[in-house]
Amino acid sequence: MPEPKQIRVVGIGTGDPEHLTLQAVRALRDVDAVFVLDKRAETADLVTVRTRICAAHIRKPYRLVTVADPPRARRPADYAATVDAWHAERAERLEAAFAESLAAGEVGAVLVWGDPALYDSILRILDRIRARGRLALTCEIVPGLSSVSVLAARHGVPLNTIGGAVQITTGRRLAAGWPAGVDSVVVMLDGDPTFAGLDPDLTVHWGAYLGSPDEILVAGRLGAVADEIRRVRAEARARHGWIMDIYLLVRRAEAGTP
Amino acid sequence: MPEPKQIRVVGIGTGDPEHLTLQAVRALRDVDAVFVLDKRAETADLVTVRTRICAAHIRKPYRLVTVADPPRARRPADYAATVDAWHAERAERLEAAFAESLAAGEVGAVLVWGDPALYDSILRILDRIRARGRLALTCEIVPGLSSVSVLAARHGVPLNTIGGAVQITTGRRLAAGWPAGVDSVVVMLDGDPTFAGLDPDLTVHWGAYLGSPDEILVAGRLGAVADEIRRVRAEARARHGWIMDIYLLVRRAEAGTP
Ligand SMILES: C[S@@+](CC[C@H](N)C(=O)[O-])C[C@H]1O[C@@H](n2cnc3c(N)ncnc32)[C@H](O)[C@@H]1O
Ligand SMILES: C[S@@+](CC[C@H](N)C(=O)[O-])C[C@H]1O[C@@H](n2cnc3c(N)ncnc32)[C@H](O)[C@@H]1O
Repeated sequence: MPEPKQIRVVGIGTGDPEHLTLQAVRALRDVDAVFVLDKRAETADLVTVRTRICAAHIRKPYRLVTVADPPRARRPADYAATVDAWHAERAERLEAAFAESLAAGEVGAVLVWGDPALYDSILRILDRIRARGRLALTCEIVPGLSSVSVLAARHGVPLNTIGGAVQITTGRRLAAGWPAGVDSVVVMLDGDPTFAGLDPDLTVHWGAYLGSPDEILVAGRLGAVADEIRRVRAEARARHGWIMDIYLLVRRAEAGTP
Repeated sequence: MPEPKQIRVVGIGTGDPEHLTLQAVRALRDVDAVFVLDKRAETADLVTVRTRICAAHIRKPYRLVTVADPPRARRPADYAATVDAWHAERAERLEAAFAESLAAGEVGAVLVWGDPALYDSILRILDRIRARGRLALTCEIVPGLSSVSVLAARHGVPLNTIGGAVQITTGRRLAAGWPAGVDSVVVMLDGDPTFAGLDPDLTVHWGAYLGSPDEILVAGRLGAVADEIRRVRAEARARHGWIMDIYLLVRRAEAGTP
């Protein structure tokens, strides 16, 4: 049995190199290789953040291995099957990269935006590689600041109402209506926030490019600021060529808030 | 107008001093005073973590100011009104502490367990202090790793199913039944996890004292491990005199998981 290869999945936060935890800094120090899943959506700005983090924290010569992303259908008829096939293909490519570019006993890092546990496929992909059983791997997950926490911090607001639940969901799901039984909803992955059908009396806290020098924040009564958010978002997206944004919707003024 | 006092609310993660972000490390470096809201539930272990963090990162002599917590009814008849009165009282005490123990232009830190935005009253209390308008304060919030992210990382699992929503809720709310419309539920603040009325085919990932040397993890099919979790939890709680635990419940095997 060869000595296993060590993989560290490192959450790096959402754009500010100071979002790294001390644990992440330590996890990067002695890596032999950094594996990058080359999402085509990825932009020069994101690559710059990653490169800067590696340069600042990796304390030995290391290899940078880019793993090309398989093509993905844009509007698949069968969403689940398509995601499944796409994960399978990514798993094969990443496994091949580990096999070729990491010797037994060596340490590889996969840097993940935000927290690896939230809307990122890396943990499922590593599960698949382990399930295939061809590579001896040990995996360590280093949690990271998610864009959810950064959004709340930058606006200075709590996510939950007092004793209330918080739902983290996607733009696709929100389009089906306000989730039952919660007063706080965080929406990620919304490619076109229309806010259609939502109560205009909701409070919205919206943020884009959080943690980066280009950060934009807008907050207020949804009915009053929805248009502004859509305008600011469209302008910023056109200017940068891409956007990453997230928002918190809260249902009512809290009991007791003055 | 006197120079405002600066307050930094710093999320410190959940027990591992390496959960601190580089931003938190920088935010602590030059503080003049650390304010501690003395929750009576607080234990020697938590005080030790905080003390160690201050000693490691504050780079100048600083004052430690403990603000006694007002008493709080255990099972109040009117929950909202009680919380409200309790927040008001805490706000008054913290305001008095800022007024007395921080000169104009000085910097105070409030260290918060996990992420300040999740089930912590500090942001609401600071809002109240600002709303009273008697102190000139500037506040900066430094987000922290929440126990939600640490739970997922330690178990090596994603929080969301593919494209699915995640609900973060309390034991009190879960007792009313499985939340509508989600496959993933994270339960915090559950003083007595009975798992009553839940589908035994749920998958549970449970963790206690996450990030500390006493960390305990249990995972499996809920029907198979619920008793074990309750037993392990009771034993650990008796041994330590306190417990902090959190769990993720997931509704079905995911499409495509081998
Ligand atoms: C594929 S998910 C990855 C989330 C990531 N794992 C996390 O914990 O934040 C991408 C979504 O995260 C949110 N997001 C990530 N980084 C962000 C940032 N810097 N500013 C605003 N939103 C961000 C956006 O909603 C975006 O659509
Ligand atoms: C008052 S809330 C504070 C949560 C904190 N702000 C956070 O972001 O994790 C306390 C609850 O957080 C969870 N928790 C916090 N730290 C934990 C730890 N180290 N291990 C397990 N659960 C923890 C437990 O569910 C606990 O009842």
